[in-house]
This record gives sequence, structure tokens and C-alpha cells, in this order.
Amino acid sequence: MRYYEDIDVGSKQDLGSYTVPKAEMTDFAERYDPQPIHLDEELAAETIHGGLIASGWYTASVCMRLLVDGFLEDSSAVGAFGVDELRWRTPVRAGDTIDAEHRILDATESTTRDDRGYIEGELTAHNQDGEEVIEWRATSIFLRRP
Amino acid sequence: MRYYEDIDVGSKQDLGSYTVPKAEMTDFAERYDPQPIHLDEELAAETIHGGLIASGWYTASVCMRLLVDGFLEDSSAVGAFGVDELRWRTPVRAGDTIDAEHRILDATESTTRDDRGYIEGELTAHNQDGEEVIEWRATSIFLRRP
Repeated sequence: MRYYEDIDVGSKQDLGSYTVPKAEMTDFAERYDPQPIHLDEELAAETIHGGLIASGWYTASVCMRLLVDGFLEDSSAVGAFGVDELRWRTPVRAGDTIDAEHRILDATESTTRDDRGYIEGELTAHNQDGEEVIEWRATSIFLRRP
Repeated sequence: MRYYEDIDVGSKQDLGSYTVPKAEMTDFAERYDPQPIHLDEELAAETIHGGLIASGWYTASVCMRLLVDGFLEDSSAVGAFGVDELRWRTPVRAGDTIDAEHRILDATESTTRDDRGYIEGELTAHNQDGEEVIEWRATSIFLRRP
């Protein structure tokens, strides 16, 4: 189990990659973001995007899964306050392979609760052409070593 | 169709509400955020949350659906740059009813492309006890009236 004390500021985690299945991408959009650019192939082709693109929340969710598998699993993380500077750069399309990495920006012990500390991390992800697709900064709560 | 010109700074949109089914909440977590606090009932009961809580990305996705149905549908929105100040306040639990609203903070015509403008909006959502569960600010691209 990795606790707050085991996380080094400046360290990087390679989170691996995921290839986006079209059905999963459009299933997500049907349920949570049913805009034509995510679902209507013909209409999307005529927009500024030139074809179907993933919901930005789908891209974020796929990267969250990579972050759990590649960093949060077997850690003492118990939640997050939120996210800042979430940016969708190049849109994700069906069949894209998204490769993510995570960097520890800062670590701060709680001043009011001695069982926890706060980890600020930055996630970035690129597609198979090296174009950045998403990035965000998040502050998570980690328990300290008992 | 509502275009950039039809969106008034300062206006508010009531986005309605959604009651969270437990199966949907845990299905989302299994796929995109498989941390014990979202999936393992017994373990979650012993954490600082005292029971299963929704993935923050699930809460965001549910609110995105409310935003599409209550504001973006039948508009000229063609995407968003990103999100700032996303905050998860009170965790969402199965059976909670989430009520969302949206407020237009700013509108700016593009200086480089005369077919579009940028709308900055703030989404906030509360549970059935009036506790805030999530908020964010996003800048979206809207096409101007042709």
C-alpha cells in the first residue's frame, strides 16, 4: 500500500494506453452527452470537426481509468477535491489510442487532520499521432502511513 | 436553434433533476473509476465517507446530461475548450436526487473567426438536502447566427 509519505514530488507515472472502441464512445455519449457531434455521423461530418468526436467527459473518464490502474490502485487515496485547468485539446475519435502520464506537482500535509495529506497531480494524454488530447490538474486526499 | 447571439449574460437555466440509480453509479465506477470507495460496500463503510460514494466523474457526467437536455440541445454549441474550478463538494450516494442549474457568466465574440463566439457558463448542482455536490465553469464554442 502506498501512503502519502511514499509519493515523491516530481515523480512521473506512465499510465499506459487505451484504444477507444467506437461503440463504447457512442454508448457514453448516448447516456451522458447526447450532442450531434458525438452521435450523428452525417451531421458531425459537416461541422468544424469533420466527423464524430468523443464527449470530453468520455475522454476524461478513460483517462481516470488509466490513472486508477496506473497510480491510485493500492494507494491510500480516499478522494479528490476537484480539478483545475481541464483542457480538451485535440478531439478523440473512435479507434484512437490514448496514452496517458501523470506527474506529482506538490504534496502538502493537512494542518488540521494529522491522518492525511494532499497530493497535487497533473495528468496529460496524447493520441497515436503525438497530439495532446486532454490534461488536468487535481488535488487528491491521501491517508498518511498509520 | 439558439445561436451565440441568443444567449444572455446573467441568464439562468434550471436544468432539472436526476435520481441516481445504484446500478448505474456502480457500473460507471467499474468501467472508469474502480476504486474501493466507489465499489466495495464493506470497505467504503470504514472510510472517512462511511459508505459507497459515486465517482466524481459520474457526478460530472450526470450533470452534463442535464446540461445537454436543459441548455445545449437545439443550440449552436460545437464543443468546449475545457473546465475550470471543478469542485466535488458533498459526495453523491445511490438514490440521491441531483438538481442542477446553469448561469451564463460571459460571452465573447471570437476576434479571429467571425462565425463563432465563446460562452462562459457555471454549472452548480445540489442534492435533495440542499447540499452542493458539484460545480464547474466551462467555456464553450457557439456558432453565430448565419
